[in-house]
Amino acid sequence: MVTTAKPAYKVVGTRPIRHDGYDKVTGKALYGADISLPGMVFGKVLRSPHPHARIRSIDTSKAEAHPQILAVATAADLAGAEDKMGEVGEEVYISLKYACDNILASDKVLYKGHAVAAVAAANAHVAEEALALIDVDYEVLPAVSNVEDAMAPGAPILHEHMTTASMGDDVPVGTNIADHQQFALGDVERGFKQADLVIEREFRTRTVHQGYIEPHNGSAWWSPDGRVTVWCSSQGHFGIRDRIATVLGLPVSAIKVVPMEIGGGFGGKLASYLEPVAAVLSRKCGMPVKMFMSRVEVLEASGPTSGSYVKAKIGVANDGRITAAQAYLAFEAGAYPGSPIGGATACMLSPYNIPNALLDGYDVVDNKPKTTAYRAPGAPIGALAIETILDEIAERLGIDPVELRVRNAAKEGTRRVDGVVNARIGMLETANAVRNHPHYNSPLPGVDGKLTGRGVAFGFWRNNTGPSTVVATVVPDGKVMLTEGSVDIGGSRPAVAQQFAEVIGIPVEDITPQVADTDSIGYTSNTGGSGVAFKTGWAAYEAAQDVKAQLIERAAAIWDTDAADIEYDDGAVRHKSDTELALTFKQIAGRLNDTGGPVVGRAGVNPRGVGGAYAANIVDIALDAETGKVDILRVTAFQDVGTAIHPSYVEGQIQGGVVQGIGWALNEEYYMSDDGRLLNSSLLDYRMPTSLDVPMIDTHLIEVPNPGHPFGVRGVGEACIVPPLAAVANALYNATGCRMRQLPMSPAEVVSALSAE
Amino acid sequence: MVTTAKPAYKVVGTRPIRHDGYDKVTGKALYGADISLPGMVFGKVLRSPHPHARIRSIDTSKAEAHPQILAVATAADLAGAEDKMGEVGEEVYISLKYACDNILASDKVLYKGHAVAAVAAANAHVAEEALALIDVDYEVLPAVSNVEDAMAPGAPILHEHMTTASMGDDVPVGTNIADHQQFALGDVERGFKQADLVIEREFRTRTVHQGYIEPHNGSAWWSPDGRVTVWCSSQGHFGIRDRIATVLGLPVSAIKVVPMEIGGGFGGKLASYLEPVAAVLSRKCGMPVKMFMSRVEVLEASGPTSGSYVKAKIGVANDGRITAAQAYLAFEAGAYPGSPIGGATACMLSPYNIPNALLDGYDVVDNKPKTTAYRAPGAPIGALAIETILDEIAERLGIDPVELRVRNAAKEGTRRVDGVVNARIGMLETANAVRNHPHYNSPLPGVDGKLTGRGVAFGFWRNNTGPSTVVATVVPDGKVMLTEGSVDIGGSRPAVAQQFAEVIGIPVEDITPQVADTDSIGYTSNTGGSGVAFKTGWAAYEAAQDVKAQLIERAAAIWDTDAADIEYDDGAVRHKSDTELALTFKQIAGRLNDTGGPVVGRAGVNPRGVGGAYAANIVDIALDAETGKVDILRVTAFQDVGTAIHPSYVEGQIQGGVVQGIGWALNEEYYMSDDGRLLNSSLLDYRMPTSLDVPMIDTHLIEVPNPGHPFGVRGVGEACIVPPLAAVANALYNATGCRMRQLPMSPAEVVSALSAE
Repeated sequence: MVTTAKPAYKVVGTRPIRHDGYDKVTGKALYGADISLPGMVFGKVLRSPHPHARIRSIDTSKAEAHPQILAVATAADLAGAEDKMGEVGEEVYISLKYACDNILASDKVLYKGHAVAAVAAANAHVAEEALALIDVDYEVLPAVSNVEDAMAPGAPILHEHMTTASMGDDVPVGTNIADHQQFALGDVERGFKQADLVIEREFRTRTVHQGYIEPHNGSAWWSPDGRVTVWCSSQGHFGIRDRIATVLGLPVSAIKVVPMEIGGGFGGKLASYLEPVAAVLSRKCGMPVKMFMSRVEVLEASGPTSGSYVKAKIGVANDGRITAAQAYLAFEAGAYPGSPIGGATACMLSPYNIPNALLDGYDVVDNKPKTTAYRAPGAPIGALAIETILDEIAERLGIDPVELRVRNAAKEGTRRVDGVVNARIGMLETANAVRNHPHYNSPLPGVDGKLTGRGVAFGFWRNNTGPSTVVATVVPDGKVMLTEGSVDIGGSRPAVAQQFAEVIGIPVEDITPQVADTDSIGYTSNTGGSGVAFKTGWAAYEAAQDVKAQLIERAAAIWDTDAADIEYDDGAVRHKSDTELALTFKQIAGRLNDTGGPVVGRAGVNPRGVGGAYAANIVDIALDAETGKVDILRVTAFQDVGTAIHPSYVEGQIQGGVVQGIGWALNEEYYMSDDGRLLNSSLLDYRMPTSLDVPMIDTHLIEVPNPGHPFGVRGVGEACIVPPLAAVANALYNATGCRMRQLPMSPAEVVSALSAE
Repeated sequence: MVTTAKPAYKVVGTRPIRHDGYDKVTGKALYGADISLPGMVFGKVLRSPHPHARIRSIDTSKAEAHPQILAVATAADLAGAEDKMGEVGEEVYISLKYACDNILASDKVLYKGHAVAAVAAANAHVAEEALALIDVDYEVLPAVSNVEDAMAPGAPILHEHMTTASMGDDVPVGTNIADHQQFALGDVERGFKQADLVIEREFRTRTVHQGYIEPHNGSAWWSPDGRVTVWCSSQGHFGIRDRIATVLGLPVSAIKVVPMEIGGGFGGKLASYLEPVAAVLSRKCGMPVKMFMSRVEVLEASGPTSGSYVKAKIGVANDGRITAAQAYLAFEAGAYPGSPIGGATACMLSPYNIPNALLDGYDVVDNKPKTTAYRAPGAPIGALAIETILDEIAERLGIDPVELRVRNAAKEGTRRVDGVVNARIGMLETANAVRNHPHYNSPLPGVDGKLTGRGVAFGFWRNNTGPSTVVATVVPDGKVMLTEGSVDIGGSRPAVAQQFAEVIGIPVEDITPQVADTDSIGYTSNTGGSGVAFKTGWAAYEAAQDVKAQLIERAAAIWDTDAADIEYDDGAVRHKSDTELALTFKQIAGRLNDTGGPVVGRAGVNPRGVGGAYAANIVDIALDAETGKVDILRVTAFQDVGTAIHPSYVEGQIQGGVVQGIGWALNEEYYMSDDGRLLNSSLLDYRMPTSLDVPMIDTHLIEVPNPGHPFGVRGVGEACIVPPLAAVANALYNATGCRMRQLPMSPAEVVSALSAE
């Protein structure tokens, strides 16, 4: 359902069949696993059995000597092998070393499953068996696998060079704290003094995985001329290209990455694991090398998101006005620095106008796989804290929880904690939509033998931009081939084509969009930050302007007049004064070769003007108090989506994000043994919601166009995952009177919490 | 050897290693035969055993019912199946019917090997065996397989609708003459009256094949959405795309043709044979279908060039000045109209300034495969007549044969018989280069037991242009990805990249050129007419200008100044007055993302300004009078190449063209049985020169830049094949005193001619 009137677009806002639909449903679409190359061989990775150990030595001689082993790779083959500390400076070298060590460990292994070596053989089975020929001598070290233990005095230290010196300690000691970030606004102490009610709570969440269905894969073919071609599934083949270049010490132009279709990413396919290894093996054996992970490898050795510890405090006046907010957040980064702590702190307070705030974020390494992005990275954890405390405040003050949000809603001109002053945003429209929605105003249904409850929560995601390129080729029969650099995860081929079609005034079915390899399109930043419809849509808009300008020149030549006398409007070039003179796009497309040659439109952009997105959920649950199992009865997901370019895919994004949030809230976790091993490394044991676990997610699109984009695009893929954690927790409280502040709220944990009340 | 000074280019005129060299020599380059697709099946073609027959019926029911046959195709599956004569008019319909019937015959077969039906099966062997399941009921008709027989009264008529009505006959009768073209200049009767000497001679040549090593192949994968992807070896994937569209009745945008590397074409890979059939089979069985020809199929059923009958007459004054020339030429078209007769008539007189001329050309169908282009189509046959008559005239008048050419040489401003008035051309420079060359002035070597002789001959090729597209992507490390639409046969990737590099001022090694599929680059006309270095080089020049303009804008933004204050020169953007401000291409390439986004340059062109090319050969031969075998002792090949972009590839083109001309002169022919069957359909029996048959061909490049191109490019691939036929014939006369006017001058024919003297 769409609430706000928008300009009279003809293509934007419609719901065409996706261009890649036929290929997807008939199985013709090619994924990384479909790659087959002449003379192709297979690579497998030897992984650490220990969560933490020093590598005394790696002896590959038996593998090297084995007649069926075609190549062996270790960290010695990567750019980090040479100690360049003195040459490039500590910061640059450490960053390179981290990047390399997570591809193939050099001096230490930092998590169970950490890659140590790899071999290539004629088939994957031989390669896998051959891993046993490699002898690694480990000195096993004590491991730490949660953020509080990792920060405790005396904790095992992962990186010896990481000390408290950077925090100003006179006598620096080893630490697992990689970074401390702070956001401050106003005077938080004075703010709390102004408060009539202050509530402070602690929260804990566990490591969760994005759970994409397609495992990581990478194939590489190295040419004797020093160029390497890589085929893989990623959220950004330019990002993979640049990472391979870093890790192998190559110029980026020496690498061509061919993007295959992607079977899910959610942030987890921004990182590179297998591609550089396949490239090294191919260089050594001269043949194309194909690699893919098993599900166990995906869970143990790709990049989940952080477990966390959060302490948050909110002060309010009796009228519900928030006077101050403060939080301390510590996020697991896994083996190497780089948790999404910044996403949590930047977003957790942004739905609201809070004059005084102080947020301290800590990035903490421990013996788990290096975290990567996961849909609105960090924001759901931050929202869990803020939105459940606000729920408690609303109850304490006797204010309707949505009314509490309306009273504090961020608006155009509100300064966010990250310093951004909001342009036109849709928080108030979102809150009002929730308040007026039939779901919010309907009685909570009863379920025999179960406790039922309703919760609401809000959330914010900032969205992102970046460089992007689009090239549009006009075909003589009046169609357009649209080549773009953005990997299409959630339907961006149609969404980008729609924006091009809107400008040119042709049906979107007349456009054939395709994602080109890194040799064949200009640099385009990752598919992440919900940025593709924004940035690549913008590039399509500009490429269409380039086409229009050229068509006007052609018409001027045909009509022997001045280009200034001609306009492009409603799908045709027209003489401004002589109404007899008009050529539709299709007509002039057929006359290009004779009027100067083919027309190609191009645009490389890096647009400003990103607009943040606001989301809210109403969640009804039913709880079996005996087993602790929570059933989701009904969810209505609200979101300010800016202009919905393709509403079906917007709705799909929202539904998917909500379901992932529910899984995070209720069941998903990295279940670790005491000695730091992942115990549930299969999709049977790592329990994501299935279609049987969730109802149809109702969506309610609020369209407040982003003034910073030609079509008002905001970005829709991430804000949707922010509210569900808190909304489910608030619903559970509503059902039971028990506030759970630790995820997952799994049956065992719920039973335990209820019995502790 | 280069004779003319040219501008001080840095990249143009150098000899870099070709970008595709490593892939070619290591076997990594992918040809059509390398295609392997998931679920791929194989197609084979049923071909006519008769040179001429009416198809009474085709019964495919047994094949359709066979469990291992996945699909069957016949003419009924093509767009020509429906009689649209009334709908589209006779001319359009007949043209469509010809196009379709040569893919799969409908009512008649017109040559042995003519495709009649096709089947798809899991492998090529099953498919081939299954062809026997198709019953074709033929009414065998008398066949005709040379041009004189085909024009004779009472000859079997191939196409019933083809009558003499178009030639003004009151009572039209059936004819095999498809077309009559005439070029006239001045008053030829008066011209002959002015002559002191008139010589008229008759010439006959046989059908010859281009002899490319890679057989035709085509794979196709039809999607349920109605789009079909085709992989093939061709001289123009856009041409193949358009032909498939015609034959299958599809819009061009429904077809994506992926160009594979090409193992030779020489004009013979402009036509399409297997691609539409593979597409039909794929549509029917739902799987990708791969097809390829055997060598027998290539020789029997692809497109060789015409056998011919020519009668030519030249009148000269006693001082050697040509007063008039006239010729009657009849060329075999093969089964359907379209011989290269126009290439012969347009070019045969063009080396000379001839005030009065009349050329009548006839296009004649007969029961042989439909001819296609072969390197300078038609021109070698025309030159054989003119250049041997001129040799005779020189002898009769006692004028040195090269001096005779110098006296008559075409110059800037000379009007050619096709109406073109020459711009700056290099005929005189070429003739002078021959006259002054050590080879021409050296004594003819003696060979024990053999007769030796020397011949010279000249030739002209007009060259061609057409639409072409280039897109250039700037890579952040300062390299450039250059995407072009021209299939690269003879080294055009480096030659086009060199022209781009020259403009941008970077090494050509910093450019990675690639040929893109029809979805991924703008329309680009075929690789033919020696046009690629000209037209696609021009597109690269324009794309480089587009890049330069954008870099100037970026520099203006970085330096906060006006674009008008900045110039791009010598590989860098520079402030015109502030010499401190300069950024090399590499430097600014690294700053694009932060100054507005990636930079892509694009150009679609269809340039005028084509410049014709002149060639000459000095050939020394030795003849074994007993066996008739001719040995080539020495060849020096001269050519005005305009600016030689990559001299090594120019030399290679010349050497290849000369060798093909020698083969045509001495040994190659379609040896036909009396009932119209090709008897030598293998490369053992169809006798092309091998490396043991020819000496190293010395080349002498004359660089008279074409004033119609930014870098002076003319086109170099075809003029080289024009002189050898006549040069060898003149050498044979010089050795024996016997003038042979029929090709090939094979041992048997030479012995026969010598004994007839």
